Amino acid sequence: MTAATAKDGKRGLRKDGVAAYMQEVGARARQAARRMARASAGEKNAALFALARIIEDESQAIIDANLLDLRAAREAGLEDALLDRLELNRSRVAAMADGVRQVAALADPVGEITELKMRPSGIQVGRMRVPLGVVGIIYESRPNVTADAAVLCLKSGNACILRGGSEALQSNQAIARCIHRALRDAGLPADCVQVVDTTDRAAVGHLLAMPQFVDVVIPRGGKSLVSFVAEHARVPVIKHLDGNCHVYIDGEADAEKAIAVAVNAKTQRYGTCNTMETLLVDAPIAERVLPELGRIYTGHGVELRGCERTRRILPQARPAAAADWDTEYLAPILAIRVVDGLDEAIDHIARHGSQHTDAIVTENYSRARRFLREVDSSSVMVNASTRFADGYEYGLGAEIGISTDKFHARGPVGLEGLTSMKWIVLGDGNVR
Amino acid sequence: MTAATAKDGKRGLRKDGVAAYMQEVGARARQAARRMARASAGEKNAALFALARIIEDESQAIIDANLLDLRAAREAGLEDALLDRLELNRSRVAAMADGVRQVAALADPVGEITELKMRPSGIQVGRMRVPLGVVGIIYESRPNVTADAAVLCLKSGNACILRGGSEALQSNQAIARCIHRALRDAGLPADCVQVVDTTDRAAVGHLLAMPQFVDVVIPRGGKSLVSFVAEHARVPVIKHLDGNCHVYIDGEADAEKAIAVAVNAKTQRYGTCNTMETLLVDAPIAERVLPELGRIYTGHGVELRGCERTRRILPQARPAAAADWDTEYLAPILAIRVVDGLDEAIDHIARHGSQHTDAIVTENYSRARRFLREVDSSSVMVNASTRFADGYEYGLGAEIGISTDKFHARGPVGLEGLTSMKWIVLGDGNVR
Repeated sequence: MTAATAKDGKRGLRKDGVAAYMQEVGARARQAARRMARASAGEKNAALFALARIIEDESQAIIDANLLDLRAAREAGLEDALLDRLELNRSRVAAMADGVRQVAALADPVGEITELKMRPSGIQVGRMRVPLGVVGIIYESRPNVTADAAVLCLKSGNACILRGGSEALQSNQAIARCIHRALRDAGLPADCVQVVDTTDRAAVGHLLAMPQFVDVVIPRGGKSLVSFVAEHARVPVIKHLDGNCHVYIDGEADAEKAIAVAVNAKTQRYGTCNTMETLLVDAPIAERVLPELGRIYTGHGVELRGCERTRRILPQARPAAAADWDTEYLAPILAIRVVDGLDEAIDHIARHGSQHTDAIVTENYSRARRFLREVDSSSVMVNASTRFADGYEYGLGAEIGISTDKFHARGPVGLEGLTSMKWIVLGDGNVR
Repeated sequence: MTAATAKDGKRGLRKDGVAAYMQEVGARARQAARRMARASAGEKNAALFALARIIEDESQAIIDANLLDLRAAREAGLEDALLDRLELNRSRVAAMADGVRQVAALADPVGEITELKMRPSGIQVGRMRVPLGVVGIIYESRPNVTADAAVLCLKSGNACILRGGSEALQSNQAIARCIHRALRDAGLPADCVQVVDTTDRAAVGHLLAMPQFVDVVIPRGGKSLVSFVAEHARVPVIKHLDGNCHVYIDGEADAEKAIAVAVNAKTQRYGTCNTMETLLVDAPIAERVLPELGRIYTGHGVELRGCERTRRILPQARPAAAADWDTEYLAPILAIRVVDGLDEAIDHIARHGSQHTDAIVTENYSRARRFLREVDSSSVMVNASTRFADGYEYGLGAEIGISTDKFHARGPVGLEGLTSMKWIVLGDGNVR
């Protein structure tokens, strides 16, 4: 045997090892999901309250495990921003426990029956909300996602398979131990929440390709992770890739509202997906709002990139290149374009937007209605900052992500997005 | 250049030709979808009523085109069953026109706004029902699907790309001409409904792999078509593969209802996906219901295949093999198993069912409730025949298919399944 084939053989074996491990994880999750689906609200809440308590009791153990991850990450030369995301200090662990209690306080979505209508045949037909089954979650450095994601899946009656970043392995395992203790205390199977404990990247590929065991996959992390998952998944994916959000200031906008919304949408936070990246201004109002907006943005240190008409009003703006209209800056940079009316604005958004969140500022009823209907984004707003696109702001109580897909869950995804509606038929011996 | 490379080059060119064609079809559909999304209920209904009239006016032209397909199919030696599916006679064309009018009479699902709730921040948040965008439909010999599918997409504000069987090409094109005339009469773009006019199978592959142009694909046809689509699609799919449906006669069932439901679920039609394929009987009631059921089934010519305990009561039943529990017969054959109580029944369904439709017959309140909650199928019934699992019976007014997936649309899929809910936010200059 040559060295090459020996190596191939070994690699093959290792691959088979991960495949077998993930199949086992999947089969256990599927089995546990059946038990979870029939867990009562009381059982699930008991597990969640137990978990909050255990996280608090074990906060030192969690922080110690996190220190191991942090040390290894520093040695590996991780950037400061990544180290910050990875870190679990006392207040972050406390916030994690609080988050668990908040989810416990939400209404149980499972079992809800709606629209039980009588049909001419005599049957009564309605729908019942039920868990999806097994949810796979693939995430990066933040270890608090382990608790956040697990409790949302638990509350919605799903089993989950969590695959965190390898740099957070110790932290994630420490949190997983808390979750398993809580599940056992509540009499629920520990397999409801499985944290993949191999750092082999092949595990992700397997997780994406087990439709018999996994009902949906949710990637949470950077664009390259999400793209990879979207490209390779053989199961449904709840994802959003870009948040290239727009505010359109219509010619009939209230200038004060327009300025408040446009400033807030850009400057309240720069790094979030619902931050405005391009401002569209209707020509008739441009001279009225742009000078003041320019002053405020410049005061905030926002770099402006404008079309030609914008630069005639705001000479401090750099010329926008074609690529600017398609860029999610996630930074204090703003593209500004003067447009001729609603149609051009809607057209710009259709062409360059990412179907995440777009807002119009206007006092004109018919244009507001048209914008609401015709802009094909997961959130469409009138006279409100795009920064409101958020599960908590929408009253979902929790958020597992924001979906820019149109299928199944759209926009901020809370507990409902982790369920489906099945049909139920109540009869009295009815036949066709 | 060798012959081989020349051939490859030519093949590549041909492939590029189909690819370019499908890209063009996709881009046109995406463009037309934007217009369709804002079409009013009146415009859409005008197109539908015009279509019904044009189908009636052009029925001879449609039948003539169909005769060409039938002749070619006969020459190609197609089976009688397939020829029957392919045939469009006067009454089938009339039924097609009637179907179009029925869809026109349904409420417009697009634009519906629900749950507009005030939030503590002052914004008002709700959801608006909007079209999915572009729907790809891949189907086999029945040319009436061309009209059925097109009108459902049209009514729900979607553009569609239809890819029918090559054996029905002439019929499908004749129907497409009617649709295009109707769209033009109503002032809607003809590209809203495009019928792929190449018989090159590569077109299907391209249709499945254009996420930028196609939002969902619906395969309608045999299992091999559906499997192929599910395997290769890079966009979401609404599909069902198998209908291995169960009726469970509980120990506390009303024997009369049990017999009525079990007979109807099997014998009303044999070839439909919601027909019962396995009957589960609780041991305490087996001796009371099985003898009469056996007589009735035998009277209908249904071949029985039973477990050992069944055969002690029904000696005429052949022994069931392990594979019988997993088989969708679509034929006058029934598998029967005697089980010990609800848990064994639910377990059998979880193991062997296809998550399509399953029913319990019982007078026991708690068992009915457990069955409803714990059986993870798209339709779950109490004291009603599985044959009711149908969009018309459920009051959807129309059905584009039955989904056994849990994601997005589940069970019979009507107009709603071709839409999604986006979030809308109404503010008054609100900022975070």
